[in-house]
Amino acid sequence: MDIIRSLDAMQQYSLGAKKRGLRIGFVPTMGCLHEGHLSLVKLARARSDVVVLSIFVNPIQFLPGEDFARYPRPVERDEALCRETGVDIVFYPDEATMYSVDHSVYVEETRLSGGLCGSSRPGHFRGVTTIVAKLFNLVLPDVAVFGQKDVQQSRIIQRMVRDLNYPIDIILGPIVREVDGLALSSRNRYLSASERQDSVCLYHSLRRAEKMVKDGERSVAQIRAAMVSAISLSKSARIDYIEFVNDRTLQPVTVVEEPVLLALAVKIGATRLIDNVVLKLT
Amino acid sequence: MDIIRSLDAMQQYSLGAKKRGLRIGFVPTMGCLHEGHLSLVKLARARSDVVVLSIFVNPIQFLPGEDFARYPRPVERDEALCRETGVDIVFYPDEATMYSVDHSVYVEETRLSGGLCGSSRPGHFRGVTTIVAKLFNLVLPDVAVFGQKDVQQSRIIQRMVRDLNYPIDIILGPIVREVDGLALSSRNRYLSASERQDSVCLYHSLRRAEKMVKDGERSVAQIRAAMVSAISLSKSARIDYIEFVNDRTLQPVTVVEEPVLLALAVKIGATRLIDNVVLKLT
Repeated sequence: MDIIRSLDAMQQYSLGAKKRGLRIGFVPTMGCLHEGHLSLVKLARARSDVVVLSIFVNPIQFLPGEDFARYPRPVERDEALCRETGVDIVFYPDEATMYSVDHSVYVEETRLSGGLCGSSRPGHFRGVTTIVAKLFNLVLPDVAVFGQKDVQQSRIIQRMVRDLNYPIDIILGPIVREVDGLALSSRNRYLSASERQDSVCLYHSLRRAEKMVKDGERSVAQIRAAMVSAISLSKSARIDYIEFVNDRTLQPVTVVEEPVLLALAVKIGATRLIDNVVLKLT
Repeated sequence: MDIIRSLDAMQQYSLGAKKRGLRIGFVPTMGCLHEGHLSLVKLARARSDVVVLSIFVNPIQFLPGEDFARYPRPVERDEALCRETGVDIVFYPDEATMYSVDHSVYVEETRLSGGLCGSSRPGHFRGVTTIVAKLFNLVLPDVAVFGQKDVQQSRIIQRMVRDLNYPIDIILGPIVREVDGLALSSRNRYLSASERQDSVCLYHSLRRAEKMVKDGERSVAQIRAAMVSAISLSKSARIDYIEFVNDRTLQPVTVVEEPVLLALAVKIGATRLIDNVVLKLT
């Protein structure tokens, strides 16, 4: 496993690999890796000759007051996990090189970015699309893998690849969960023991919704009300949003009709967690 | 010379060429080619194995009321010129394929785009950076050539390549002029005979400024005043802007100090023309 820090070295490596006919698989991350990330590496591995995993805590996707400074950066553990999982290149672009003092070019998605997490995190997705565009141009992957957990991000990246014509296949990896259902996230480590217990309310509310849909309920209002009351059982939980949206347009719906995505964000104490499910009607 | 219309065919061609170790040179145009464009093809030719010239009148860089619909599209003449000049591929992406009905991703430059032409054409440069980003991802060039005539555009594209890390060398070709000094432009054909005579006022005013600087004048106000009176001799001329800006930041200056760019836009009748010079102090 090699470690690359220079942007130019990364790009030269990839240009060389492509010339040799190698397929490059790419997993962009902010580090603090968990089984969710590693499942994406495996998906990349199966579709490419070389797997590049980038670790970069991207400042421009954090809002003022968010956890940029304290976002965990367990470098040695991350590298060990990469080695075990068969990553070929860990790419650590450094912040100073990534953003010039007069950086002024951004990639912006204008239709899918407003709702869901975009409402409470304005500017977040502009930071995401910009960094992913940059990483795509540095790593030059044939295939890039993103997690379904960050569902709005994954839809926006798919749109970016389509609209800007990147020659890249986007693969989505399913959500990986703890035994009790909590979706894996680097931010789960912020939770205290009691918050950790409460955090399962996101999953439970999603399961409740799935069950209601399976039993024939189609009213978003009814299902949302049941989810709210399920979540309210957890003392430390404060709902940011529970949204039912068309899975292609991400526009809110009032009646459950495929394709429908149910996504939610809940603050457990000071930690904001997200989760989602694509509802199946049959 | 080959003609490619399909986005996918273009991208596959380029991926194949890169795998074979060929360097791709790229000249993006809106067609209606003239010697200015052809000089860019020659610059591309000298630096690459394959030269791709794209012809696409990009709707999103035109404002309502501008000349999108009547922009000249002399297809056969363009193709003959490409053939004569040694273009290998003419790429005609069609509008319907380039922009999906729900297209929603744009590339935006936020510091260099506000002044100069950006003031009178808000949104224009967002259209330019977006189409160029798309074309870069479709043609995958090693080197791309732009004209110094569209100087603000060229500075913005250089910034985009830097900030989004495109693995592309940007080359700028000098302004090509008619014998009397008028900068070549596809829009010159809109001029009536008398407007054509008046149109030389842009060049004359630039020469006047250069002479004043050579003679020691450093006051932007003084030089601008002389340019305004030079242009006012042409009946059909109406000044849009005459700006002296730092050539790196494109911010206005009041005293001529290197690096300084002098750029102007003048309407000759209904036709808006632009020209510029980088002032040399010694």
